Amino acid sequence: MTLAGSGEGISREELQLAARNHGLHLEALCYPITPVGLHYLLIHYDIPEVDPGEYRLELGGRVSRPLSLSLTEIQARPAVELAVTMECAGNGRALIEPHVVSQPWLQEAVGTARWRGTPLRPLFREAGLEDGAVEVAFAGLDQGVEGGEEQRFERSLPLTDAMRPDVLLAYEMNGLPLPPQHGFPLRLLVPGWYGMASVKWLSEITVLDRAFAGFQQAHSYRLRKQEDEEGVPLGRILPRALMAPPGVPEFLTRQRVVEAGACLLEGRAWSGFGGIESVDVSPDGGRTWSPAELEHDLDSPWAWTAWSFEWDAPPGEHDLWCRARDEAGNVQPLKPEWNLGGYANNAVQRVSVLVR
Amino acid sequence: MTLAGSGEGISREELQLAARNHGLHLEALCYPITPVGLHYLLIHYDIPEVDPGEYRLELGGRVSRPLSLSLTEIQARPAVELAVTMECAGNGRALIEPHVVSQPWLQEAVGTARWRGTPLRPLFREAGLEDGAVEVAFAGLDQGVEGGEEQRFERSLPLTDAMRPDVLLAYEMNGLPLPPQHGFPLRLLVPGWYGMASVKWLSEITVLDRAFAGFQQAHSYRLRKQEDEEGVPLGRILPRALMAPPGVPEFLTRQRVVEAGACLLEGRAWSGFGGIESVDVSPDGGRTWSPAELEHDLDSPWAWTAWSFEWDAPPGEHDLWCRARDEAGNVQPLKPEWNLGGYANNAVQRVSVLVR
Repeated sequence: MTLAGSGEGISREELQLAARNHGLHLEALCYPITPVGLHYLLIHYDIPEVDPGEYRLELGGRVSRPLSLSLTEIQARPAVELAVTMECAGNGRALIEPHVVSQPWLQEAVGTARWRGTPLRPLFREAGLEDGAVEVAFAGLDQGVEGGEEQRFERSLPLTDAMRPDVLLAYEMNGLPLPPQHGFPLRLLVPGWYGMASVKWLSEITVLDRAFAGFQQAHSYRLRKQEDEEGVPLGRILPRALMAPPGVPEFLTRQRVVEAGACLLEGRAWSGFGGIESVDVSPDGGRTWSPAELEHDLDSPWAWTAWSFEWDAPPGEHDLWCRARDEAGNVQPLKPEWNLGGYANNAVQRVSVLVR
Repeated sequence: MTLAGSGEGISREELQLAARNHGLHLEALCYPITPVGLHYLLIHYDIPEVDPGEYRLELGGRVSRPLSLSLTEIQARPAVELAVTMECAGNGRALIEPHVVSQPWLQEAVGTARWRGTPLRPLFREAGLEDGAVEVAFAGLDQGVEGGEEQRFERSLPLTDAMRPDVLLAYEMNGLPLPPQHGFPLRLLVPGWYGMASVKWLSEITVLDRAFAGFQQAHSYRLRKQEDEEGVPLGRILPRALMAPPGVPEFLTRQRVVEAGACLLEGRAWSGFGGIESVDVSPDGGRTWSPAELEHDLDSPWAWTAWSFEWDAPPGEHDLWCRARDEAGNVQPLKPEWNLGGYANNAVQRVSVLVR
């Protein structure tokens, strides 16, 4: 990994990644379900072009009866639809100093979709788990080179997580077949976990009797301070509140211009550790905080919660902050907590506004 | 305008813009029609949230009978569907040295969609053009501050261009209502012109008896070397060929790794000046050139042309270039031609590959 020097700009390599990995436009926080094309994307390699007629999902490893399923067979199984908020584990990376050279997210790597698919768990019963099964590896069809290794994108889940009834094999997003960039024709969906767990273009599921040692599991997506540390694997999404920046933007700086007087601040908050207990808003850069009103406008425990706050905007420059706390007691830090990979930076959002 | 110093990285301001303004993943050049969410986006301010029931399109200015139309009324008019390749006038900006601080496109600001809408021209007949009409201004619902001025996004066309039979008021993209980010519920579509002409969230059309002096017309989107030059307004899209980079990418650098032997190079080429006459490919960094095969796989004069080239890839490092020529005789330059706004840089694409 390479760290950018303090004050160094974003490199050509990071710009190439930023041009591919799309973020949510924060004004689109107004939509409970993010329209296709506004949901964030993090694609490690290339988007594979998959012929749905040729497609097979293979399930093997420590099972008695390996399965091989066509897309039609998967779609004929019992279906579930679930609104899920998904966030990239690297969201906030570019706001960490010094930041690792990788996808330079600010705070926009999030989105909520209605995913339709079939639960994964019954497949394990049909295949028959053998003694000693402890983990499940998931491989996508996307291939590339990373850390010097040619690889498919592969991630694992502990068996207990893979057996959660809400883990889906998803083939629809917002009522339509998955778009290519979201994993057509099939992806894993692990509600509450950072996006790296929800393997796209899913082609192979392997039940393991030991910990999976693949690159994206053993090397990437771990919280650590130094390269030689084993680190802590990333899993559930830490809480975050985001605000749709009020008023209108200046084109280049995105600085907000707001009219003085009543100004309704609105946004959404989420956590992979449970529901959102509170969102607090500070209109004065953290000096005073007041609770926002919450509205859970989606019928899913895994979807974000809407919040709003009536602000009487006085003329001048202001720094608006918002901060979520989840039911498990996790609360957003005021400053980023540094780690080598630039992961899980859920420090509070700061929106600078000029009130006229 | 601010120019970034030579060798300076991309600034925070540019990164904010890159996170909002999505590019085409170049492997998606395999699709004749770009799937929604992969088509490029350039959004000056915020995406407005528009209630289609409340929406009106107003046509006024130098006309005898001003019109005010609901979305339903517009959709009841004769409809046309047209595949159109659209490109941002700033495509290639970040590859110009020194580059102006603005949306830092590399080469991915392009896409092709099937747009459905009603021709604009009959509306002028119904409204009755008055003597002296020479230009038509189009205003969107998106608002912000740019160049120190609070403004809506507004652009104009000479009346002769606005009267072209293929200029549409478009309300569908790829068979569905326009997504919010592409101008829901209605946008202008000017085939063959850079995207700034195809005003999104269109709300007002004004026939003028003089040149339109709005910011985006008189200041932005002009080719010039210095701030105080009047400059040449941008209009039609210069020719460009792009290649879907072959092989697989390295995650961070996007460097391509290709197996030695037969390798089919594929891509697409387009021009706003007419059809593509030829695409030439150089597998050796411009020393030798050979013609690619062309296939016009879309039934539209305004859509890109597919090209392919059989390359026998020898081991080693190679620099693959491609170059389009249009029927009007325009050909891509080998190096960027500098201008202050970083516009219309259609220098040939260079794809670095490592063959094993």
